Amino acid sequence: MPLQIVLAQLNATVGDVTGNADSIRQAAARAHAAGAGVLLTPELSLVGYPPEDLLLRPSFLRRSQELLEELVQETAQWPGLALVIGHPRQVDGRVVNAATVARDGKVVGVYGKLELPNYAVFDEQRYFVPDGAPLVFEAGGHKLGVAICEDIWFGRAAAMAKAEGAEGLLVLNASPFHLNKHDERLAVIRQHVSRHKIPAFFCNLVGGQDELVFDGDSFVTDASGEVVARAKAFAEDDLMVSVQPAGSVGGGEVAAGLSPEAQVYQALVLGTRDYVQKNGFAGGIVGLSGGIDSALTLAIAVDALGAENVTAVMMPSPYTSEMSLVDARACAKALAVELHEVSISPAYDALSQSLAPLFKGRAADTTEENLQSRIRGVLLMALSNKTGRLVLTTGNKSEMAVGYCTLYGDMAGGYAVIKDLTKGWVYRLSNMRNQHKTGVDGQLVIPQRIIDRPPSAELRPDQVDQDSLPAYDVLDDILVRFVEQGQSTAEILAAGHDRETLAKVYRLVRSSEYKRRQAAPGVRITPRAFGRDWRFPLTNRFLEKEIFQ
Amino acid sequence: MPLQIVLAQLNATVGDVTGNADSIRQAAARAHAAGAGVLLTPELSLVGYPPEDLLLRPSFLRRSQELLEELVQETAQWPGLALVIGHPRQVDGRVVNAATVARDGKVVGVYGKLELPNYAVFDEQRYFVPDGAPLVFEAGGHKLGVAICEDIWFGRAAAMAKAEGAEGLLVLNASPFHLNKHDERLAVIRQHVSRHKIPAFFCNLVGGQDELVFDGDSFVTDASGEVVARAKAFAEDDLMVSVQPAGSVGGGEVAAGLSPEAQVYQALVLGTRDYVQKNGFAGGIVGLSGGIDSALTLAIAVDALGAENVTAVMMPSPYTSEMSLVDARACAKALAVELHEVSISPAYDALSQSLAPLFKGRAADTTEENLQSRIRGVLLMALSNKTGRLVLTTGNKSEMAVGYCTLYGDMAGGYAVIKDLTKGWVYRLSNMRNQHKTGVDGQLVIPQRIIDRPPSAELRPDQVDQDSLPAYDVLDDILVRFVEQGQSTAEILAAGHDRETLAKVYRLVRSSEYKRRQAAPGVRITPRAFGRDWRFPLTNRFLEKEIFQ
Repeated sequence: MPLQIVLAQLNATVGDVTGNADSIRQAAARAHAAGAGVLLTPELSLVGYPPEDLLLRPSFLRRSQELLEELVQETAQWPGLALVIGHPRQVDGRVVNAATVARDGKVVGVYGKLELPNYAVFDEQRYFVPDGAPLVFEAGGHKLGVAICEDIWFGRAAAMAKAEGAEGLLVLNASPFHLNKHDERLAVIRQHVSRHKIPAFFCNLVGGQDELVFDGDSFVTDASGEVVARAKAFAEDDLMVSVQPAGSVGGGEVAAGLSPEAQVYQALVLGTRDYVQKNGFAGGIVGLSGGIDSALTLAIAVDALGAENVTAVMMPSPYTSEMSLVDARACAKALAVELHEVSISPAYDALSQSLAPLFKGRAADTTEENLQSRIRGVLLMALSNKTGRLVLTTGNKSEMAVGYCTLYGDMAGGYAVIKDLTKGWVYRLSNMRNQHKTGVDGQLVIPQRIIDRPPSAELRPDQVDQDSLPAYDVLDDILVRFVEQGQSTAEILAAGHDRETLAKVYRLVRSSEYKRRQAAPGVRITPRAFGRDWRFPLTNRFLEKEIFQ
Repeated sequence: MPLQIVLAQLNATVGDVTGNADSIRQAAARAHAAGAGVLLTPELSLVGYPPEDLLLRPSFLRRSQELLEELVQETAQWPGLALVIGHPRQVDGRVVNAATVARDGKVVGVYGKLELPNYAVFDEQRYFVPDGAPLVFEAGGHKLGVAICEDIWFGRAAAMAKAEGAEGLLVLNASPFHLNKHDERLAVIRQHVSRHKIPAFFCNLVGGQDELVFDGDSFVTDASGEVVARAKAFAEDDLMVSVQPAGSVGGGEVAAGLSPEAQVYQALVLGTRDYVQKNGFAGGIVGLSGGIDSALTLAIAVDALGAENVTAVMMPSPYTSEMSLVDARACAKALAVELHEVSISPAYDALSQSLAPLFKGRAADTTEENLQSRIRGVLLMALSNKTGRLVLTTGNKSEMAVGYCTLYGDMAGGYAVIKDLTKGWVYRLSNMRNQHKTGVDGQLVIPQRIIDRPPSAELRPDQVDQDSLPAYDVLDDILVRFVEQGQSTAEILAAGHDRETLAKVYRLVRSSEYKRRQAAPGVRITPRAFGRDWRFPLTNRFLEKEIFQ
């Protein structure tokens, strides 16, 4: 009889230990009904990932332990099924990132994660101590080792499991998405597991958690490192494979990989949906400007939440062009979204008059531009407070990087859908979305003129973004090198950028750090977003003083 | 001849490597002129602390190294002076938190920090690898060991230095302040250094860096662990002591310790001053309400920046009492601060009319309260944009904990002066400040009626805080136990709090996490503030589902 192994690609919610235990229970029942001998779940499947400082709360650890013990007992209901659960485990007052294997009502063994990532978005050394004592158990005549996520990004854990006799490696993961992450994971499995000539069962978490999106995309490699089964990306899935008595593995579905644009788009949709729904909001609100950023944000919001759960608001000023009004209406109509139009002029006039005595003798400057943006923020937040829908902000990564955005203005809101998309990616995804599916009456979801016209904030007459910023293709390339790839100044100059432009970008990035610190979270889709993986001091005299003086 | 050792308690600015090198140079010149044989500086004195992700930038590491090498060469100008500099050091592509001892133009030795804190506000394992190979060097006939900050919170580093023959331990520190931290440091020195019967020279950083304040308060203990010299707190200082040929140490100033209130008040003043000045702002702006929080914030701002650099703005609504207007004016007058009065009614009316069509059929609720608060935020930010002065927010820790504050409203601003003060501490410091020094014409800086009246947000008729919140003494005690001391639910209940109140506080704390994530930084004065040391997920179903269902 071949051994059936199921990888349960679950969408666990952080802190929802009761709900997560239910999901694991249901997956176990499904796996048992399908004749499986092993059910593998993601890293920390019982508590969600990352639980952050919840791990410092005694009641959280105790409640997790209680539910773990319940699940262990319940395995008696699914005879012969080895259930692999990820959970935090207290040992002598310290905490281990653990996996418990339970079968027939008893604990078969417990593994503790060895390699604790403490870079980029990860802070595991804040919470966990390493363990790594190998766990190899028998199931259906096969010896299976256990490892957890970062363990397989290094060689030690797999080597130790192999040395203990493992004929296959079960890997619990909470591996967050960035573009083309699947290829990186596969390369790592091949480097550290497949070289031992054993299959690997890579079960990944799926779902959005604050700024992180876990893409699922679980897979199984055979002893030679070839992918023999692959789960869906960006959705819950059970992936079942068979291990033959002689050890060969196969028989599972092999989901097709996604294009780069589809990966990123689906990550944005899932991240937005889970943030809104897991936090119990009634829907989303998007301020439309007639520009491409807000149009794309609205499309993502509709795909994530449903048109009936999204409100669009157009808030024109005297600087808003007729074209913007027309295009915003067309966009909302194509997406079948309710659109409110509220002029900001009455509030602008009232605030300007109130401020006039304080501003006497001072020339107009960006203050007046920010004022317009902030009135829009106030209007959207009022609508949010009144309706329970969450304001989704519309700023992109290029703007957020250089501070081309207004704190408490267009930055006001609870979730920043496209904050990790450079402007170039905004165009790529807009075109992709238009091609993918048209809207009401066959209209383009993002009207072509929105894509074709030069970007403008429309906060003063005849303004375009390129009055203030380098051309977006230049800016984006610098940002990708500086922010995402961490290139040195010498490397960026060597790529052909001129010193003055680079100096300007550095200065703008550094001087807008304070804005980003107060920004809403949003989906991370690159190796480095402006979130947990960007921790620059606010008070920082380095960049401008040292490099370009 | 006794050996003179100087502890240079410097205010280094993060990233300002050129400026910090100058400060070290000047301190060395002073020490040499005074006949010293050793000059000790704080941890990472060349680059400031914490440099955070600057440590991931190659150009930052390279520039630090260049300046270190310059300083090493310059020690030839101060013959016989051993200069101890804190700096990041690249070793085989990894970075060590190092101290270099240089004398007569040459490197005497380099030490690398052994214990890397990765808890509370610290993330050193994100940046550094541990070293810990002991460094003991000779100066004036004495053998001196070197350790860095966290090293002395454990036993290993001091024991290894002692084993290498150290007759005294030089400790470079960047130890952030919280209330009564000096006592903790002294206990630790006694536990890990003094038990080896050697003196300790504890040189601490001073100054504000974002949310952290380093209090200086450097000190020297003799071989028995008695404090024989102590530098000023909250100011730069050189502390010089003599080591006699037989090893006894003494001869330095012994600054008096400060009361708890004075410690906290000076921390707030220094943190605010350094944030404003190091970031190049022209001054501060405070929105006065006639309540105690904004009155205390204004007093701190004036003490930090000078009355001429502070602007106060009173923004009454129809719900603002005459008493509030009178008291706010008295407060500004006593502090000799310019006061603007701007009614929010015109903007409120304009916005309400604009929103009326969207709100048709919906009852008034907190939306209208938030609207008032947000108009004030918009006005203050406009004044900030126009004048280059930074808006200082006025929310306290009790409010921030339970979300009794408006995002983009009273939370709008660049620095949150009293965000780590519970309401009880707001009263303590207000009374202390009034007793300390009166204002213009001998008037109380914080009018007595502001202290005596029940707190109110004045956002609807006859509102007081206790309509919405538990009594502040109850709330504060729960918050101190839950937030600052990390007590379990069982412990908090055992202290006499009732289950319903605790459940309410938990629910409020959890449901306002998203507000705090977008809050301005502010001075940390407790062991756990709402900043780097409070990292709870936004999406988190734990507290309300598990404890009190």
